[in-house]
Amino acid sequence: MIDFKEILGNVRQNVPLVHNITNYVTVNDCANILLACGGSPIMSDDTDDVVDITSICGGLNINIGTLNKNTIPSMFLAGKRANELGHPVLLDPVGAGASRIRTETAAKLLEEIRFAVIRGNISEIKALAQGSASTKGVDADENDQVNTGNLDGVIAFAKAFSVKTGAVVAITGALDVITDGEQVCLIHNGHPMMSRITGTGCMLSAMTTAFVTANPGKPFEAVCAAVIAMGLSGEIAHKRLTELDGNASYRNYIIDAVYNLTAEQLEDGAKYEMR
Amino acid sequence: MIDFKEILGNVRQNVPLVHNITNYVTVNDCANILLACGGSPIMSDDTDDVVDITSICGGLNINIGTLNKNTIPSMFLAGKRANELGHPVLLDPVGAGASRIRTETAAKLLEEIRFAVIRGNISEIKALAQGSASTKGVDADENDQVNTGNLDGVIAFAKAFSVKTGAVVAITGALDVITDGEQVCLIHNGHPMMSRITGTGCMLSAMTTAFVTANPGKPFEAVCAAVIAMGLSGEIAHKRLTELDGNASYRNYIIDAVYNLTAEQLEDGAKYEMR
Amino acid sequence: MIDFKEILGNVRQNVPLVHNITNYVTVNDCANILLACGGSPIMSDDTDDVVDITSICGGLNINIGTLNKNTIPSMFLAGKRANELGHPVLLDPVGAGASRIRTETAAKLLEEIRFAVIRGNISEIKALAQGSASTKGVDADENDQVNTGNLDGVIAFAKAFSVKTGAVVAITGALDVITDGEQVCLIHNGHPMMSRITGTGCMLSAMTTAFVTANPGKPFEAVCAAVIAMGLSGEIAHKRLTELDGNASYRNYIIDAVYNLTAEQLEDGAKYEMR
Repeated sequence: MIDFKEILGNVRQNVPLVHNITNYVTVNDCANILLACGGSPIMSDDTDDVVDITSICGGLNINIGTLNKNTIPSMFLAGKRANELGHPVLLDPVGAGASRIRTETAAKLLEEIRFAVIRGNISEIKALAQGSASTKGVDADENDQVNTGNLDGVIAFAKAFSVKTGAVVAITGALDVITDGEQVCLIHNGHPMMSRITGTGCMLSAMTTAFVTANPGKPFEAVCAAVIAMGLSGEIAHKRLTELDGNASYRNYIIDAVYNLTAEQLEDGAKYEMR
Repeated sequence: MIDFKEILGNVRQNVPLVHNITNYVTVNDCANILLACGGSPIMSDDTDDVVDITSICGGLNINIGTLNKNTIPSMFLAGKRANELGHPVLLDPVGAGASRIRTETAAKLLEEIRFAVIRGNISEIKALAQGSASTKGVDADENDQVNTGNLDGVIAFAKAFSVKTGAVVAITGALDVITDGEQVCLIHNGHPMMSRITGTGCMLSAMTTAFVTANPGKPFEAVCAAVIAMGLSGEIAHKRLTELDGNASYRNYIIDAVYNLTAEQLEDGAKYEMR
Repeated sequence: MIDFKEILGNVRQNVPLVHNITNYVTVNDCANILLACGGSPIMSDDTDDVVDITSICGGLNINIGTLNKNTIPSMFLAGKRANELGHPVLLDPVGAGASRIRTETAAKLLEEIRFAVIRGNISEIKALAQGSASTKGVDADENDQVNTGNLDGVIAFAKAFSVKTGAVVAITGALDVITDGEQVCLIHNGHPMMSRITGTGCMLSAMTTAFVTANPGKPFEAVCAAVIAMGLSGEIAHKRLTELDGNASYRNYIIDAVYNLTAEQLEDGAKYEMR
């Protein structure tokens, strides 16, 4: 059983300061969801700035969504410094498999940085693990979707990748698969409309970094709680939608729901199973 | 007559993947409006990334709103690759006429890339066509505004520019003028308050790229439908405003309206005339 | 007494065009709040673009929130050009004290550019004035918070810094301290929840630049009015919150409140004292 009260309570009480090297598309939402969950965001991506900034933070979120020649070396510098300091580092390999530079950068980050968490959709994680994939842009390929038919295979794959990398692996989608190489958590929270908002994955990665940072020694439980929190917030926000609302209001409502989220809501609304 | 059912239906069914090289000011809104209309966005602007990314997409949206030394060469690389692949490419010359580098970059893009669509305000399009203008920042100059007095001249200008470039030219503002060099469509949809939101032009360009990508062989009709869709969504969203709402809520409501837009709404609400 | 009718009226009537070199985290909110208050935003940060752009604007807002090797030289180029043209320039030293490059860049900007306004939280302003601070990321350190116990000291510090720099100094937080070296204004408007939104400081800096630009010769009064306008909008927006709303909706409501703000609301709601 996940102790939501403790996990969420630690985020709210510790106010984890999270350093984000992330894309410019969804960065504002990442900052606001970090504030919503109880953390504190700082964004910095210049090679001259990242070592100092990550040193005063508690955790580091690396998202390659709009990587470029200036920010790639910053990811390595910040990642290594965070490793030295024992800060948890999360990798969100946005679009790995969709371009050579994304796949290679993510792979090289995996080689040189010790990640506490790797979070992506199934296509991205496959690209990362196998060096090839049929990623359709930043969304998972339909042929890759996790379902009851291929679930055992996906779990075995995720466990092996977790063992290899030493990271908690979170493959998120309609059904989320989280593993630390031994324990496996399947999560059924969320709503299909979340895929019609840009950045739900990025936001989840940012929030997950806060949860892991605020809960030292419990990365698996913290990742599970963060993924459940995001999915449940998507459900709560969806109930709020009126006929006139669409994905823009939905985005706001999801962040609002995270802001108001309680341990009780998590206990009542969590839909997960441990394997 | 524009076949809204077919045009919008194709966007919703084909889910066109649009590569955006765009400014960091309105990029999140561009991504969300692409998702709202039925498309799928990917942003990428590094020279090492853009060729791979545009290759897996269906269309390319180039917006020079915050161009810089790193992204300018990416625009050329991606544009040429998209041309090779036969993908439609749209140019949004944000602020052309306001600085030398913007005017020159837009002009050079026009020389080296074959654009399917050029969309901007009257001052930007004049700067592009004539190499000079009195652009006031990113908004059209008041002296340039299209009105009944100068409409014939603007139409003749737009047609000539369309013939010269081979692109559908969309001059948008209170009155929109769209032409493929032969056909002309005047559009009266929209609401003045749309100019009080940042990025309505950028969003329209992103959405237009999706409409053109999903409707091969019909660029003129697709552009007209996208411009009408944006204007009508601005009208629908405006009706939703309460006394306490301002431009922030209005922005969300417009994207929401695009999300919920139907062919029937377009058929009933479109205010356009073919010339 | 601050003449809100005149100050706000000038913003709405003059539609000041503000050039922003700002971070990519909150840039969209900065653009929308500039439009909300009655100004017009343009963002540009490339060395080849900024001189032209600032030349057609009325004021310049420099925010170092995500400074990098490309944008730092742009800040100097634009700042010097704005100085030549007599345009007011505002400095928002985001995260000064949190990294060497931020502290040094802000200090060097102060040396080479004449600022009309410097706006930051107490930790940032201390870092700027004293070359050292205990900035916790982008938020003020708790030990630095302005309160009744240290208020006299903070006022003396702010006045000295204003005299030294020739700028109106605005130290904002739960209690805002504004001074031009002689006059001091203490402002009690605002709501604690504003600190749970990313970018309230950035937005205030952008809006303040518009207020100062539209009110030549009255920088102190214009800064006070802008700070009051932001705080009061935070109060008005907070009243609008429902049980389900959180920081995302609150952000929108604040910009909405600025959009609808009247001189009468300012006259009735302003909570300030001149010292």
